[in-house]
Amino acid sequence: MDIATIIGLGSAFGLIIASIMLGGSVGMFLDIKSVLIVVVGTFAVLFVFFPLKDALSLGKILMKTLFNKNYEPDEFVEQMVNFGKLVRTEGILALEEAGKDVKDPFFRNGLMLAIDGTETEQIVAQLEGEIDALEDRHKKGADMLAALGMVAPAMGLIGTLIGLVLMLQNMSDPSSIGPAMAVALLTTFYGAILANVVFNPMASKLRARSASESLYNRIILIGIQSISKGDNPRIIESRLNSLLPPAKRVKLFD
Amino acid sequence: MDIATIIGLGSAFGLIIASIMLGGSVGMFLDIKSVLIVVVGTFAVLFVFFPLKDALSLGKILMKTLFNKNYEPDEFVEQMVNFGKLVRTEGILALEEAGKDVKDPFFRNGLMLAIDGTETEQIVAQLEGEIDALEDRHKKGADMLAALGMVAPAMGLIGTLIGLVLMLQNMSDPSSIGPAMAVALLTTFYGAILANVVFNPMASKLRARSASESLYNRIILIGIQSISKGDNPRIIESRLNSLLPPAKRVKLFD
Amino acid sequence: MDIATIIGLGSAFGLIIASIMLGGSVGMFLDIKSVLIVVVGTFAVLFVFFPLKDALSLGKILMKTLFNKNYEPDEFVEQMVNFGKLVRTEGILALEEAGKDVKDPFFRNGLMLAIDGTETEQIVAQLEGEIDALEDRHKKGADMLAALGMVAPAMGLIGTLIGLVLMLQNMSDPSSIGPAMAVALLTTFYGAILANVVFNPMASKLRARSASESLYNRIILIGIQSISKGDNPRIIESRLNSLLPPAKRVKLFD
Amino acid sequence: MDIATIIGLGSAFGLIIASIMLGGSVGMFLDIKSVLIVVVGTFAVLFVFFPLKDALSLGKILMKTLFNKNYEPDEFVEQMVNFGKLVRTEGILALEEAGKDVKDPFFRNGLMLAIDGTETEQIVAQLEGEIDALEDRHKKGADMLAALGMVAPAMGLIGTLIGLVLMLQNMSDPSSIGPAMAVALLTTFYGAILANVVFNPMASKLRARSASESLYNRIILIGIQSISKGDNPRIIESRLNSLLPPAKRVKLFD
Amino acid sequence: MDIATIIGLGSAFGLIIASIMLGGSVGMFLDIKSVLIVVVGTFAVLFVFFPLKDALSLGKILMKTLFNKNYEPDEFVEQMVNFGKLVRTEGILALEEAGKDVKDPFFRNGLMLAIDGTETEQIVAQLEGEIDALEDRHKKGADMLAALGMVAPAMGLIGTLIGLVLMLQNMSDPSSIGPAMAVALLTTFYGAILANVVFNPMASKLRARSASESLYNRIILIGIQSISKGDNPRIIESRLNSLLPPAKRVKLFD
Repeated sequence: MDIATIIGLGSAFGLIIASIMLGGSVGMFLDIKSVLIVVVGTFAVLFVFFPLKDALSLGKILMKTLFNKNYEPDEFVEQMVNFGKLVRTEGILALEEAGKDVKDPFFRNGLMLAIDGTETEQIVAQLEGEIDALEDRHKKGADMLAALGMVAPAMGLIGTLIGLVLMLQNMSDPSSIGPAMAVALLTTFYGAILANVVFNPMASKLRARSASESLYNRIILIGIQSISKGDNPRIIESRLNSLLPPAKRVKLFD
Repeated sequence: MDIATIIGLGSAFGLIIASIMLGGSVGMFLDIKSVLIVVVGTFAVLFVFFPLKDALSLGKILMKTLFNKNYEPDEFVEQMVNFGKLVRTEGILALEEAGKDVKDPFFRNGLMLAIDGTETEQIVAQLEGEIDALEDRHKKGADMLAALGMVAPAMGLIGTLIGLVLMLQNMSDPSSIGPAMAVALLTTFYGAILANVVFNPMASKLRARSASESLYNRIILIGIQSISKGDNPRIIESRLNSLLPPAKRVKLFD
Repeated sequence: MDIATIIGLGSAFGLIIASIMLGGSVGMFLDIKSVLIVVVGTFAVLFVFFPLKDALSLGKILMKTLFNKNYEPDEFVEQMVNFGKLVRTEGILALEEAGKDVKDPFFRNGLMLAIDGTETEQIVAQLEGEIDALEDRHKKGADMLAALGMVAPAMGLIGTLIGLVLMLQNMSDPSSIGPAMAVALLTTFYGAILANVVFNPMASKLRARSASESLYNRIILIGIQSISKGDNPRIIESRLNSLLPPAKRVKLFD
Repeated sequence: MDIATIIGLGSAFGLIIASIMLGGSVGMFLDIKSVLIVVVGTFAVLFVFFPLKDALSLGKILMKTLFNKNYEPDEFVEQMVNFGKLVRTEGILALEEAGKDVKDPFFRNGLMLAIDGTETEQIVAQLEGEIDALEDRHKKGADMLAALGMVAPAMGLIGTLIGLVLMLQNMSDPSSIGPAMAVALLTTFYGAILANVVFNPMASKLRARSASESLYNRIILIGIQSISKGDNPRIIESRLNSLLPPAKRVKLFD
Repeated sequence: MDIATIIGLGSAFGLIIASIMLGGSVGMFLDIKSVLIVVVGTFAVLFVFFPLKDALSLGKILMKTLFNKNYEPDEFVEQMVNFGKLVRTEGILALEEAGKDVKDPFFRNGLMLAIDGTETEQIVAQLEGEIDALEDRHKKGADMLAALGMVAPAMGLIGTLIGLVLMLQNMSDPSSIGPAMAVALLTTFYGAILANVVFNPMASKLRARSASESLYNRIILIGIQSISKGDNPRIIESRLNSLLPPAKRVKLFD
């Protein structure tokens, strides 16, 4: 999983809980009815916002993106240059053996297409289609997180209004006013945490990870294209380097 | 109707009502005057926002879009390829019999034009005009929902201010202050629900459904164009596939 | 006048007044000092926002746009095709007699230029200049309404702060606190109504009417251009139809 | 100075002061500590927002733009056409005498360059550089006013929070609570006025004046270019007219 | 360090502290728990927002940008023209001696590449890569400051809600309500200061400094390119001048 997300969520929730425990008990801040209206209510509204298929896929998108390994754009540059050398010396079929070590499914898939003798143009079209579909899924995921980040404080406000109206209608016992209002504020509290600590930051993280996964896949695509065309390994290196930030560039030839 | 909208609205309202009933009665949250000023008032302001014809068409747009069937972009690809084969073997008039099963009015309309021998260019122009008009209607619908989503909380605030001013002018009976303030808050409560649970999410859903209906119609348009020109069925398949996401692509030929 | 604006403003204000009268009297919500600071103050700030000439022209722009007749883009298509026929059979001067019935000043002005034998290019340049100037005026009007919609709630807040500070400095008589606070809230109430019921919706309406008036004038411009060039009436019809939504298209030839 | 700004600021502040005096005294709304934190504090934060040189130049930019004369884009068209005639009949040096009456520094500067025989291209490059620098200065000025308009309410909130915390820590004397809270609200009051009556509207005014000064200078630039090239005066007129709104166009030839 | 940032932050905090001390003691506004939840909590959420590597680099970016010297775009123009003369008279290797005085690492790096006889195209590619990477780092820094500016008030609100809920649950001792509420407000106070005095203004400052550092480096890049190509010194001067604002242009030749 994304280590920064764990650190960030862990510390933020840790601080909030510590801050509560210094002045009272965590139990004072737990109210199942309030949790239901904010958390479940926010996800319910997600289904009004988005088509069924999209809303149902949110969990999977988050899992796949936030829990996946970090993508290092330069990870495969050296391997691709080597594959390029191999193709030049021993032919494309030599990759069948060498490609067995490739773990990344996108890379392996592209390699298989090249080994099968698929035309370069068609390989590019298919891999580009997959990258587009992936970016589309990530964009939908980020849009859904952003929508949740808008709805959560609204459900918090709605919950607090319910609590306030109930409290104001029953003010005969003055000693109950304080605790009733405290409970009414809990939904606003939950909504603020969900939006500002969880949903909005995660939408931003998802966008950043999507950009780096796309760059990573696009580099693989360019590499497979070069390998499939039988490009000179020096050209492969130079094409891949042009996509990398200066500090990440690889220099395998003198 | 859009099943996700039903699920979402049903669960959200269910949660809100359940949350109310755990602490009091639903009757405490019903106030006809407050409903009037927020709900009717919001729709009244819609007529200041938009021209008469647009404002009056909102209901129809919502019905047509949200209650229609879901559009699956790949629904007709196979049928179109088959129609293409038929035209190549038996001529365009053979579609008259085969086209009888087509239920989709946009598809049937395009097919009729092709059978009537209308020039391909003119068919395309007419179908494109219809798609543009549809997108325009959807855009207006989404804009109106977004406007309602802005006005509803404002009418809620106006209602609450009315309630507060009335309450503050009559504070001789302290026991009436609580209930009066509770009622004053109801318009804010209605406005928050209408905007955040109903109007804003539905504007977003309308945009998503409009995009998928447009894609669906555009695929039909491309298919009709190919059929009318007597394109090779393999080319029809490949042209339609290029519009579909990778997972939806159809492969009818080896 | 724009009928939807009348309906909308009428119903919204009717609902607000009815809502007030169910709980008290309209007099409780009228305070001349509050009206002055919000209404007059908002218009005063408009002069800081915009150059003198623009700010002074707001009233005229609103009158001209909102009280004018509704523009139907297809209104003149048939007449223009007929004028085109006339020019082809009897020459451009025949329009002098036929053009007498034309009431629309923009249409008549263009027609006069054509009859006077002004070069087509120059007619187009002059009419386009007028359309641009009109769009510019409308844009300024909508920008000013949007600025008023931002300033009104701010002046409402400023008025309420004045009321609160005055009230808090004189709390010796507890029974005066409620009414004083009620009055303080009135400016917020006025600001919310002005912005959300009047200014913001009217800015949107002005933009919609500007778009339809521009389309209407642009259709006249295209028609005059065709007539002046002596185009074939069928071509006139087809050029004008291409600017109209499908449902509005005219079919005068078989 | 810009007359509309004087009228607007004068009326708005007059209304606010009148509104205060109807319910109390202006002295109740003056608190030197609150003025310091909001006014001085807002300008202090401007130095965190912008580089030193920009922040220090704000006063000069405002003076130069808001207190300058109004620019009428058509002011010099006739004079330029006459200069063009002069150059055609008596040569460029004849402008030395005729140009003595020109007061506008940008116009005179361009004229001097033309008289000195500077190449047309170089004149255009230099004058365009000056216009760009001017637009850049105006943009920075408007950006700074917009930043002040964001910071002022924030400093108002910070001041009010200071006042509230101080008040809440010393609630032993109930009679002091009201006045203490009144003073706490003053910073919010100042912030709201500064942002909504002064800074935000003036940013908008600065943008409008910058646009009209740019148009004015650009017209001078085009005129100088034509004069320097020895263009036909009719062409000078027609080129300048094409930059003017229809109502401002000049017609010196029949 | 950026002198304007020091002046601005110093005066703003000075005013806030002075304002506090006039009404109470600074100690009343210090609460370690509140500092923790707002300051540490805000930085914790930064890790949910951004990838680990970016979040960890924020300090370094701020140091490098805000504490660096100010970049004057015209600083090196004269020196570059002189280097250009030297290359024309004594050859590129003469720069080895003359370049020893160059302190700026970007300038020296480019000079070294030119002296080493690297091809001009490759020098440009490498220096452009470095400028792009720098702009990217600055953009990330500004984005992170803007995110902190959004999160800080949210953490302030969360802290205040915790304080309010705790206070409302323990209202048995009325005399503790005031101080408890005062402490609850402190997190909102901290959040407002962090966002409006520190984070948002610094994001804007970072963007301005990034723009001027980029311009400065781009001028060096253009100069090195010209020197490496052995351009005429007059051409070097004119190319560099075209990048400078008029007032900064250098005129070394008559």
